[in-house]
Amino acid sequence: MISFGARRIHPVVAPMVERNAFIGGCDGVSVVKNAEFIGEEPAGTMPHALILIMGDTVEATRAFDEVIDPRVKRVSLIDTFNDEKMEAIRVAEALGKKVFGIRLDTRSSRRGDLQKIIEEIRWELNVRGFGRVQIYVSGGLDEKPILALNPVVDAYGVGTSITNARVIDFALDIIEIDGKPLAKRGKMSGSKSVLRCSKCFQDKMVPFKKNRGRSILGADRCSCGGRLKELLIPFIRDRKILWDLPKPQAIREYVLEQLPHYDL
Amino acid sequence: MISFGARRIHPVVAPMVERNAFIGGCDGVSVVKNAEFIGEEPAGTMPHALILIMGDTVEATRAFDEVIDPRVKRVSLIDTFNDEKMEAIRVAEALGKKVFGIRLDTRSSRRGDLQKIIEEIRWELNVRGFGRVQIYVSGGLDEKPILALNPVVDAYGVGTSITNARVIDFALDIIEIDGKPLAKRGKMSGSKSVLRCSKCFQDKMVPFKKNRGRSILGADRCSCGGRLKELLIPFIRDRKILWDLPKPQAIREYVLEQLPHYDL
Amino acid sequence: MISFGARRIHPVVAPMVERNAFIGGCDGVSVVKNAEFIGEEPAGTMPHALILIMGDTVEATRAFDEVIDPRVKRVSLIDTFNDEKMEAIRVAEALGKKVFGIRLDTRSSRRGDLQKIIEEIRWELNVRGFGRVQIYVSGGLDEKPILALNPVVDAYGVGTSITNARVIDFALDIIEIDGKPLAKRGKMSGSKSVLRCSKCFQDKMVPFKKNRGRSILGADRCSCGGRLKELLIPFIRDRKILWDLPKPQAIREYVLEQLPHYDL
Amino acid sequence: MISFGARRIHPVVAPMVERNAFIGGCDGVSVVKNAEFIGEEPAGTMPHALILIMGDTVEATRAFDEVIDPRVKRVSLIDTFNDEKMEAIRVAEALGKKVFGIRLDTRSSRRGDLQKIIEEIRWELNVRGFGRVQIYVSGGLDEKPILALNPVVDAYGVGTSITNARVIDFALDIIEIDGKPLAKRGKMSGSKSVLRCSKCFQDKMVPFKKNRGRSILGADRCSCGGRLKELLIPFIRDRKILWDLPKPQAIREYVLEQLPHYDL
Amino acid sequence: MISFGARRIHPVVAPMVERNAFIGGCDGVSVVKNAEFIGEEPAGTMPHALILIMGDTVEATRAFDEVIDPRVKRVSLIDTFNDEKMEAIRVAEALGKKVFGIRLDTRSSRRGDLQKIIEEIRWELNVRGFGRVQIYVSGGLDEKPILALNPVVDAYGVGTSITNARVIDFALDIIEIDGKPLAKRGKMSGSKSVLRCSKCFQDKMVPFKKNRGRSILGADRCSCGGRLKELLIPFIRDRKILWDLPKPQAIREYVLEQLPHYDL
Amino acid sequence: MISFGARRIHPVVAPMVERNAFIGGCDGVSVVKNAEFIGEEPAGTMPHALILIMGDTVEATRAFDEVIDPRVKRVSLIDTFNDEKMEAIRVAEALGKKVFGIRLDTRSSRRGDLQKIIEEIRWELNVRGFGRVQIYVSGGLDEKPILALNPVVDAYGVGTSITNARVIDFALDIIEIDGKPLAKRGKMSGSKSVLRCSKCFQDKMVPFKKNRGRSILGADRCSCGGRLKELLIPFIRDRKILWDLPKPQAIREYVLEQLPHYDL
Repeated sequence: MISFGARRIHPVVAPMVERNAFIGGCDGVSVVKNAEFIGEEPAGTMPHALILIMGDTVEATRAFDEVIDPRVKRVSLIDTFNDEKMEAIRVAEALGKKVFGIRLDTRSSRRGDLQKIIEEIRWELNVRGFGRVQIYVSGGLDEKPILALNPVVDAYGVGTSITNARVIDFALDIIEIDGKPLAKRGKMSGSKSVLRCSKCFQDKMVPFKKNRGRSILGADRCSCGGRLKELLIPFIRDRKILWDLPKPQAIREYVLEQLPHYDL
Repeated sequence: MISFGARRIHPVVAPMVERNAFIGGCDGVSVVKNAEFIGEEPAGTMPHALILIMGDTVEATRAFDEVIDPRVKRVSLIDTFNDEKMEAIRVAEALGKKVFGIRLDTRSSRRGDLQKIIEEIRWELNVRGFGRVQIYVSGGLDEKPILALNPVVDAYGVGTSITNARVIDFALDIIEIDGKPLAKRGKMSGSKSVLRCSKCFQDKMVPFKKNRGRSILGADRCSCGGRLKELLIPFIRDRKILWDLPKPQAIREYVLEQLPHYDL
Repeated sequence: MISFGARRIHPVVAPMVERNAFIGGCDGVSVVKNAEFIGEEPAGTMPHALILIMGDTVEATRAFDEVIDPRVKRVSLIDTFNDEKMEAIRVAEALGKKVFGIRLDTRSSRRGDLQKIIEEIRWELNVRGFGRVQIYVSGGLDEKPILALNPVVDAYGVGTSITNARVIDFALDIIEIDGKPLAKRGKMSGSKSVLRCSKCFQDKMVPFKKNRGRSILGADRCSCGGRLKELLIPFIRDRKILWDLPKPQAIREYVLEQLPHYDL
Repeated sequence: MISFGARRIHPVVAPMVERNAFIGGCDGVSVVKNAEFIGEEPAGTMPHALILIMGDTVEATRAFDEVIDPRVKRVSLIDTFNDEKMEAIRVAEALGKKVFGIRLDTRSSRRGDLQKIIEEIRWELNVRGFGRVQIYVSGGLDEKPILALNPVVDAYGVGTSITNARVIDFALDIIEIDGKPLAKRGKMSGSKSVLRCSKCFQDKMVPFKKNRGRSILGADRCSCGGRLKELLIPFIRDRKILWDLPKPQAIREYVLEQLPHYDL
Repeated sequence: MISFGARRIHPVVAPMVERNAFIGGCDGVSVVKNAEFIGEEPAGTMPHALILIMGDTVEATRAFDEVIDPRVKRVSLIDTFNDEKMEAIRVAEALGKKVFGIRLDTRSSRRGDLQKIIEEIRWELNVRGFGRVQIYVSGGLDEKPILALNPVVDAYGVGTSITNARVIDFALDIIEIDGKPLAKRGKMSGSKSVLRCSKCFQDKMVPFKKNRGRSILGADRCSCGGRLKELLIPFIRDRKILWDLPKPQAIREYVLEQLPHYDL
Repeated sequence: MISFGARRIHPVVAPMVERNAFIGGCDGVSVVKNAEFIGEEPAGTMPHALILIMGDTVEATRAFDEVIDPRVKRVSLIDTFNDEKMEAIRVAEALGKKVFGIRLDTRSSRRGDLQKIIEEIRWELNVRGFGRVQIYVSGGLDEKPILALNPVVDAYGVGTSITNARVIDFALDIIEIDGKPLAKRGKMSGSKSVLRCSKCFQDKMVPFKKNRGRSILGADRCSCGGRLKELLIPFIRDRKILWDLPKPQAIREYVLEQLPHYDL
């Protein structure tokens, strides 16, 4: 899955948003600057504009193939002018082994049953000996169609549903004044520790105790028998940052390790 | 609206079914034999098979135009190989004034928003000076999509929803024995007359009275002030058919006159 | 289950429709001619008309019993004039052991809770020593009420939901021209074989290969380990029919064998 | 509409409940004691028990007719043993002009479409010259079926939906202490007057003012131009009841006058 | 769970209704007279009126504590004037160990998420060392919110949903006359025994047999292998009551034993 | 309505977002910098933090009143510690005429029926002579609750539903190349003019004509008789900006003038 959503957000925040898309699990991002920012190679395919200017999908794919760095995979965008099935066959027959994949960005007015269209393309490519050509899909995707399309699709480009994801409501609140717990209605008062069980992955919120060191905590046990680990650690103390920030790649790995423990 | 449903029914009953489609309001039927049976010219367009055999929509339309009786309208079927918009432009640009109309029989997998596809075609044809090319639609239509498509579509071919229309439940029941009313539970006993008001078009079921002639009935009045007319008249008496059957065209006219009085 | 639907279809196609009802699993058909056509004894019960003419359910049942071939089971239709419970008791008490079963064809206006009515009848018959009288039901049934009624009903007569069953959409399409795969949008091109696994009953569609004989196919294996069997076999070659058609009884058996493998 | 619900409540509160049913709009109540309590004649029909004991609906109706005070209307209960249509015809033909009405208390298991059953009965009675026999319905009725049945039914017996009507939540609360407004959360504090507009029937709650006499209030005007009338008046002062309670008949009249002003 | 519903019913039937609430599983009833009637100590908390009169929740709780019999548990009603969280903290800090519990009767207009409010209170009490103060909830509760609140609530006061519980429809019917089974439509005729399996707790209705003694019944077996026990036993014979009525406490125990066998 | 949403967005885009909120109809924005950016006075009320630090709503309001520029309206935030009704009364009684308004930011857990809470506060303030104290509401509002609350609320603070409003999907597409209309599937080809009727406010998309000047357009008429006005005008030509951008205030006025013409 490649993050395609940079064009949906203001350019000044795009690098931060695509960094988060990457951290959250995307395999790559499509804007060159944003990819640099996180230390990855940019990923993407040819645009509709190229095909419109060239006037033909096969011509545009051929031109792309002639000019672009050979390390870049040739993924032909096949929905510009004609039916995806016919264009997929034409591109595959014209460029043969050079074609790494095809991409469908099919407009909603032509998307009666996207899965059937793709099954048809898969069949027609296979029947003609192009079984190894990959199928990419983009355009208005979120987790629901992706789960349905997984059996027939190899890769996705996802934009709006990532950059404009549902807001997660949170707030900074005063919950303690001079060491005395005090909070507005609707908030629990007093400093807190959040403990996560390393086995059952349940979180537990408990009142913060000053002298409870991390080593001591290790001795605490979850009711399931797992070890409880403190999630909150001091990051700034006496105006000094105490820890180096991990790289996006390391954070992403940490996220992906944790994902299987949650019921999404 | 042309009846396209003959292929969905057993051939031995097809003429009867298409006669009913015509009586019920269709403007024509597509099977030659059935059209003869009701005394109309058959109506239709070119099939997918012709385009598949010729290998190209424009070629097939040109061939059709060369061969077919010039009185037949040239309606090109444009959804076989490629996107309807592109094919509609190609056909119109290649054949110009010879094209009377185009037909979309678009498969459901490509029918994300059929109305938008047709609006697009209408725009592209108009922009290129083909404003007078008519747009036909067929394929899985019933009264709901037709009402939605009416602003952009000129004609329809309708099959399954006519030949396999909802069953209207009715039964022949004994309701009188030797002049004495008697009926099973759930049925009203005794011979009846059905009276229809010529003004408000409400029907009224009343016990049948032998000596109530049609002229006398004319004197009866509906509560709305309209004249009540007896709907049931003897058709066979003493083994003789008493009336000539009207022609399908006359029955159809009678149906169309009545339709505006009903809330469908 | 007996096919009762002949009166819902045009007489010229009724034998074909009832043959299909029989092949599809019905135990019998009710029209004499149609039964002959498939080589079965017709099955059915007395009609409402008989009871209306005789004026009383018990009298009509007695008359039926006096006149009809003793091999025919006496099934009394009990919903004509009076409540099913009272008539069931009257018929059973009057004819005793002669009554093989009773049939309810209860009109929808009296069918508040058909299952409760039948449970009541079953109770009243049992309490009076008629536990062996069977209960038949007919009238507007489909698979949903039948599954609910199975615990209290012994046999069904089913009409409209069989003769006017949901249309199964299919089409004949050109998918190959001179050995080259070619199909319209929405169809997969090229000749195909359909293989069914004899173990898991999954079907698999694969490109047709000329020299793949049936014996060779036997060597193919499904991913579940089962043997794959070709479903399509040539039926006409060089204007000759290659196989004798099996009898309806044999086809029906084949259908019933396969049914348990499907999730209906 | 007659209140039939006494049997659904404890006998010690039944007179109060039926008084309220009468005040709220019922035309009568069915229990002798409760009718006395409100100063009305009791109203009702024969019970199922009588018919069961006599063994036949016609016999029971005849016996009822022989014995009961001639001022009581003869309403025959026709659903005990057999179908309502058949029994209605039998009773009407046997007793002729003596029958004032028939009652259906049809069990839910036989109530597929009660309105159709009654339409059928109405037709059969009319066809045989019993157009003046009234039709009563009872059994599980509330305002919804009654509104649907009104075109074909003359009178109703209503029980459970009146005696077990939805609870109207209300509470007695302290809202003022020593003349100072004070109320718990969720309540508005201070003594109040409730004013009703005699024209638009809107109610208005305003703080109570001691010296605002009723005559002064008459001068107050609703925004619609109508006169505002104080709804709350002192009933007990210095341990004396200040007003005679109106009779149930007078309260009922007052309720019925107000009903058309509300959108129920 | 304490029955709080006496104020929702007419005083003359309140003792019977609260006896039933107790038999059905309530741990106590709140009206003194009703508690006497069933031989239990009354249970309850302080009312809103006391707090309104005293003008402050803490003052009212202190007054209650000074005056009331020390055996009565001190449960402070904390929703009268201010937010439940703040009042709970104030009461607990002012009265310390004397407070046995707090009660929330929160009005629906303040009940956005009652569970969250209670979780907050629990947290704030615990954080301040009042972990043993119990939380009571009352006001418009039925089985649904109670199941949700169980993890955070210790006790409930339930009123309307018990005293105005859904009516259970039942009827007394003639089903046998002089030993001959006879019933109206919709009822099964003849005397019956109801047998309950002591193992699977299924009930079975069978025709009554005179000479089938209870000991003989013991020999009968359910299809699951359990013993069948007759549920109906004679209570009055020859104008004599044959059995002493068990005490409410004994009936309640019998009910609670059976409850786990039912899927509510 | 004041824009409260700055804290929900990244600070670098906040000024742009709040400018849009203002243009779209908000009466003010709450962040000082953003207000400067659009040339307006910032608007807002006191925060929860102030009340938490002061420890009491009345004290905090008094402090705010002592310190803040007298031109700023005194709006007291009343939901921090205690029930809104009680705090509203306390603040009004303590500060009297100095209080311009109160604000409820009530947490969802206490928002059972926000409208009822506000009606209660309105009543209590009026009863005590504070009828002119305005009521502000904030917290999770969108157009639905606002329409419901309008009868009882004077002003709103709206955040998330503005800054995180639904994405309006749009795209930049090539639709013409070297003067020849060409577009991808799903887009209408060729340059276009958008015309708006000044009377019925319908928009009309037509092919762009070079020589159609604005004055000529004025001659065009809508089918309703109104004048058609071109919506698209050149903004940049030969690298020069042709028009001064109007001030936010002017754009806002233009938006508000148009709003009544749309059915939102």
